[in-house]
Amino acid sequence: MPETNLQVRLARRPQGAVSEDDFRLVDVPLGEPGPGHVLVRNRWLSLDPYMRGRMSDAKSYAPSVKLDEVMVGQTVGEVVASRDPDLKPGDVVLTQLGWQRFGVAPAAEVRKVDARGVPESYYLGILGMPGITAWFGLFEIGQPKAGETVVVSAASGAVGSVVGQLARLHGCRVVGIAGGREKCDYVVQTLSFDACVDHRGGKLLDDLRAACPKGVDVDFENVGGATLDTLLRLTNVYGRIVVCGLVSEYNATTPYAYTNLRSVLVNRLRMQGMIVFDWKDRYGEALKGLSALVREGRLKYRESIVEGLENAPKGLIALLKGENFGKQVVRL
Amino acid sequence: MPETNLQVRLARRPQGAVSEDDFRLVDVPLGEPGPGHVLVRNRWLSLDPYMRGRMSDAKSYAPSVKLDEVMVGQTVGEVVASRDPDLKPGDVVLTQLGWQRFGVAPAAEVRKVDARGVPESYYLGILGMPGITAWFGLFEIGQPKAGETVVVSAASGAVGSVVGQLARLHGCRVVGIAGGREKCDYVVQTLSFDACVDHRGGKLLDDLRAACPKGVDVDFENVGGATLDTLLRLTNVYGRIVVCGLVSEYNATTPYAYTNLRSVLVNRLRMQGMIVFDWKDRYGEALKGLSALVREGRLKYRESIVEGLENAPKGLIALLKGENFGKQVVRL
Repeated sequence: MPETNLQVRLARRPQGAVSEDDFRLVDVPLGEPGPGHVLVRNRWLSLDPYMRGRMSDAKSYAPSVKLDEVMVGQTVGEVVASRDPDLKPGDVVLTQLGWQRFGVAPAAEVRKVDARGVPESYYLGILGMPGITAWFGLFEIGQPKAGETVVVSAASGAVGSVVGQLARLHGCRVVGIAGGREKCDYVVQTLSFDACVDHRGGKLLDDLRAACPKGVDVDFENVGGATLDTLLRLTNVYGRIVVCGLVSEYNATTPYAYTNLRSVLVNRLRMQGMIVFDWKDRYGEALKGLSALVREGRLKYRESIVEGLENAPKGLIALLKGENFGKQVVRL
Repeated sequence: MPETNLQVRLARRPQGAVSEDDFRLVDVPLGEPGPGHVLVRNRWLSLDPYMRGRMSDAKSYAPSVKLDEVMVGQTVGEVVASRDPDLKPGDVVLTQLGWQRFGVAPAAEVRKVDARGVPESYYLGILGMPGITAWFGLFEIGQPKAGETVVVSAASGAVGSVVGQLARLHGCRVVGIAGGREKCDYVVQTLSFDACVDHRGGKLLDDLRAACPKGVDVDFENVGGATLDTLLRLTNVYGRIVVCGLVSEYNATTPYAYTNLRSVLVNRLRMQGMIVFDWKDRYGEALKGLSALVREGRLKYRESIVEGLENAPKGLIALLKGENFGKQVVRL
């Protein structure tokens, strides 16, 4: 067993776009698990847009990472030492250990996962928080009915790709928004969305209008900014806007100025913010549904893999720019 | 019986603020009721912010008034001739006859009201659409709980005054927003709100923050623009924003640019547009509750009266500037 543990810590709070200088790599002595604890070797680290929020000290729904603390994040790893009767070396577990190669956690804070039949990294994506977010956000807040039109931004991403496929299986017309021809082709050809609009095409309103001839009933919003403001113009009466993410705003130093909010009144829209923790007592319900669909091959899934913990900062920076293609993970 | 009927018609569509030149007074021959119809002499005409929307040809939740058509609006009047067995001369009725002294309507489109014990004009306000709007908007969309803080803009107006009093009776802390010292004093002293902020005071954010030490759980929004954008900064987790009106935007030629929408995500807000027609099958429920409270003296109510149909345009213009004080009606 190695004697040290590589960690990525928050070196400073970014102003605007995140840069590699906002992080610091440190090598620290490896901890030993106390009673009821386990030592885990992380194999996969999830990178997610919410991490930008935790790097900031602005008020948000979760506490900020403190300066010089290990960056937060979910990992999938292998138990290498255990002082808990329910976990043994070799068990594959989901953890909140963050950006480090190893970590010690109370057994209650890790969850054993069943990695037979699905790649273990899926528990960071389609069978993890992004998948569960998609499930509850779509069904509980979006409440789509068969035949309605559902628009999903960041459509090839970890959450958007699941939202769109679920809505499609539910009988909706599904239109994605993604950046670039390659992603749009993937969204339509592999994920089977009815259409996908390239937001880099320079005519978002016209393209969306063409792709949604009957208007928009549900907008599952991951991006915000011009995307959301444009969709506000296309929503039907009683439309729902699921505000799951506003990634276009996370790096911005001045907030986007929305000019189409009048639509909320005129079309009696319901616009609602969400975070997956709101359903934490019901995760099992979503996981059961998602697992079945994945095992049956009815949900497609794609990962964008960064090699090595030392490259995690680059991975997050790319993710926030939309340069990833599929769920962003780091192989440690 | 007079031989002619004075009407106010839409002469042109306003660009920006409404002016008297947008209306035209005409005197037309008086119609006679056909079978199943009644002839009504209107005694009170309601003026409401929604009328600004009907003067425009922009898409909204109801069709526009056509050029040279009689302006739409509710009236309370007296049946002067009837060819329907259920209505007789002298009956007091609520109508949709609009801005005219007389009108002929199918009996099914007028509703007899009980004007014993309450002034008949109340059926245009606290016992009419504004009161019903307040009732359903607050209870169905705002869903306040006792002890929560409810903020109401246009607090001395037809809808806002009822919303605030209902929320107070429901056990909430209620903070109004109104324009000027006189209205604010009325809101606190007569309507018994806990506090009222003068939006002309130039420090809306600070004043609201001081008036809402525990944040804002429900914003019943009648005004929009800077008021709504400021309240977005003060909302608590799971806050609700009832978008009932955006009167600050109705006369604007460029829409307001909202910069605090991120709060919808961070605080998992629910922002929802409404129009009273959405509950048309349940009006009786609201009217029963409101009537009881009015008759018991537990809801206070104030009217702002314009004399004479020819002054109705002035009345609407003043209303849209917030110059009315209480529910705006015209005595014909």
